[in-house]
Amino acid sequence: MKAAVWHGMKDVRIENVEEPVVNPGQVKVKVEWTGICGSDLHAYHHGIGVQTGAPHPISGEMAPLTLGHEFAGTVAEVGDGVTNVSVGDRVTIEPLIYCGECEYCRQGRYNQCERFGFIGLNANGGFAEYAIVQPYMVHKLPAHVSLEEGALVEPTAVAFHAVRSSRMKVGDKVAVFGVGPIGLLTILSAKAAGAAQIIAVDVSDERLAKAQEIGATAIINGARQNTEEEILALTGTGVDVAFEAAGAQPTFTNAVSTVKKGGEVVVIAAFAKPASIDLMQLMVKEASVTAILAYRHIFPEIISLIANGTLDVKQVITKKIALDNLIEEGFELLIQDKSQAKILTKIQP
Amino acid sequence: MKAAVWHGMKDVRIENVEEPVVNPGQVKVKVEWTGICGSDLHAYHHGIGVQTGAPHPISGEMAPLTLGHEFAGTVAEVGDGVTNVSVGDRVTIEPLIYCGECEYCRQGRYNQCERFGFIGLNANGGFAEYAIVQPYMVHKLPAHVSLEEGALVEPTAVAFHAVRSSRMKVGDKVAVFGVGPIGLLTILSAKAAGAAQIIAVDVSDERLAKAQEIGATAIINGARQNTEEEILALTGTGVDVAFEAAGAQPTFTNAVSTVKKGGEVVVIAAFAKPASIDLMQLMVKEASVTAILAYRHIFPEIISLIANGTLDVKQVITKKIALDNLIEEGFELLIQDKSQAKILTKIQP
Repeated sequence: MKAAVWHGMKDVRIENVEEPVVNPGQVKVKVEWTGICGSDLHAYHHGIGVQTGAPHPISGEMAPLTLGHEFAGTVAEVGDGVTNVSVGDRVTIEPLIYCGECEYCRQGRYNQCERFGFIGLNANGGFAEYAIVQPYMVHKLPAHVSLEEGALVEPTAVAFHAVRSSRMKVGDKVAVFGVGPIGLLTILSAKAAGAAQIIAVDVSDERLAKAQEIGATAIINGARQNTEEEILALTGTGVDVAFEAAGAQPTFTNAVSTVKKGGEVVVIAAFAKPASIDLMQLMVKEASVTAILAYRHIFPEIISLIANGTLDVKQVITKKIALDNLIEEGFELLIQDKSQAKILTKIQP
Repeated sequence: MKAAVWHGMKDVRIENVEEPVVNPGQVKVKVEWTGICGSDLHAYHHGIGVQTGAPHPISGEMAPLTLGHEFAGTVAEVGDGVTNVSVGDRVTIEPLIYCGECEYCRQGRYNQCERFGFIGLNANGGFAEYAIVQPYMVHKLPAHVSLEEGALVEPTAVAFHAVRSSRMKVGDKVAVFGVGPIGLLTILSAKAAGAAQIIAVDVSDERLAKAQEIGATAIINGARQNTEEEILALTGTGVDVAFEAAGAQPTFTNAVSTVKKGGEVVVIAAFAKPASIDLMQLMVKEASVTAILAYRHIFPEIISLIANGTLDVKQVITKKIALDNLIEEGFELLIQDKSQAKILTKIQP
């Protein structure tokens, strides 16, 4: 079968690999659509985040590995003992690998598992015609949720978990810093949660136009405008919650300075290096900074909100490509073309 | 009457000033004991924190000002219309000045008032034989709470608000970084709240001995020991809540690195300059950093816990001095002698 296999930095090959065999207790999924995530770009462009050197303690796998953790398809085969899904079921995959035994897993916080990993980074993933997953990773899709939408549940879960974990309440004012795919999905999630004002901040007018299209009530181009002044002018005393989906010092600084007293900054984006924070500002405002990692216990809720029309996640798709073109039209294009948000890859020929 | 008046940096004079006259709606307190706070030291040694240049919008006062915001005494006189206290009542003072009208005051969060100030920094305070306060600042003391204890309610309130605002739950593990007076009172408050493990971190063995005496279950001298390793060894996976009462980069870094997954860092100490934070650590742990400013709605609770013996705040007193000796035996000594915790000043001759 065809798969996009990570061999090293700038070395992802679309190659033929052996079709995987399902073992007892496993599920084999025929993959239809797989989204490209920021972590795929990190893996490709910077060679980071992929299991190398030693096999992952749970999956037992290591590079070379098939990338891809945002995917949906149909169940092709189930191993002995699998009872929650059947062949032919349309499904999306929650790609978290966890032990189920550590302190955090036992408390239900499996995204904080001590041996936490991802299908597509620490085990073979969804940029392949078939993927092997654990039954607990599989979530069925109702008939009127498409497989394209199914592939968008995973990135939506990141944004949705950020909103759900935050102090945001219906009627609140929020700001979203950085409106790439996760920022856009954060806008959708905040809108679904009843935010009264959603201010999108970015440096790309194209991204900001998209943000406005999907529900931002105001947009600020941080390259041209004074973000802090604009947010204060729009809100009076600042936002209740600021979502940092850009991962940069200037946006983090603005997030801290524009939350109101008692407000919260939620860091969603990864920060490669330590950031500077004005703790005096935090103190005067009794504000908080928190951060989220992936998601937990949230796929069924998101699927139901896609099904009932509340979350129109399709809006973040800007391009669909074939697996053969994943590198040029996906990994390379996303670095160059800032008008792109989510690119979906059609896996089957 | 005698008062300690701030005229400028390194210029606090014990001088005779006119005894204040009570106006309608005001309360005149005969001050017995006044504690020395870190902000008094900042005012004296660095010339910061005192109302200068223009009168405070609520108090209408500005320097030269009498310092002192941790005090207790007896009601000497009440102005027309004051009904909540009577002459002779033994009282402690909650020295917060607030407008009662802004968004935050209307929500009951008066410590976040837009025109927030302190008696003793933004209005004449308690290092004087008599002080004029507003009726809402006055809390009566039961017969078996001494005036010395009364003078300790204010600093206890800072620590207590930190614990009460935190996610700490009975049975949790906590660390307290910096065990000056506020750190010690944080230990007392965490103990009162049922913390199972209280780890004190400081660089002074004398302070640490005091910390152990009042309830720390383990002590770490950060100058000699590896704080991170020690806390992990003591707790397994880290503490639930880390209280930062030192206000320094190394302790803040250790606080962030030693909270467990889902844990919280509560910043109590003021940070003069921006701090560095590893947001990646925060993300992997889904941990939070929050900060508190003073306190709100908490004096009666603290007074009742002092009264019933739960909070033995007297333990933090290391010295009692006369008002005449405030500079040498108070403001100067506290910089030199790290074995000192709370110094109380006897105001009446």
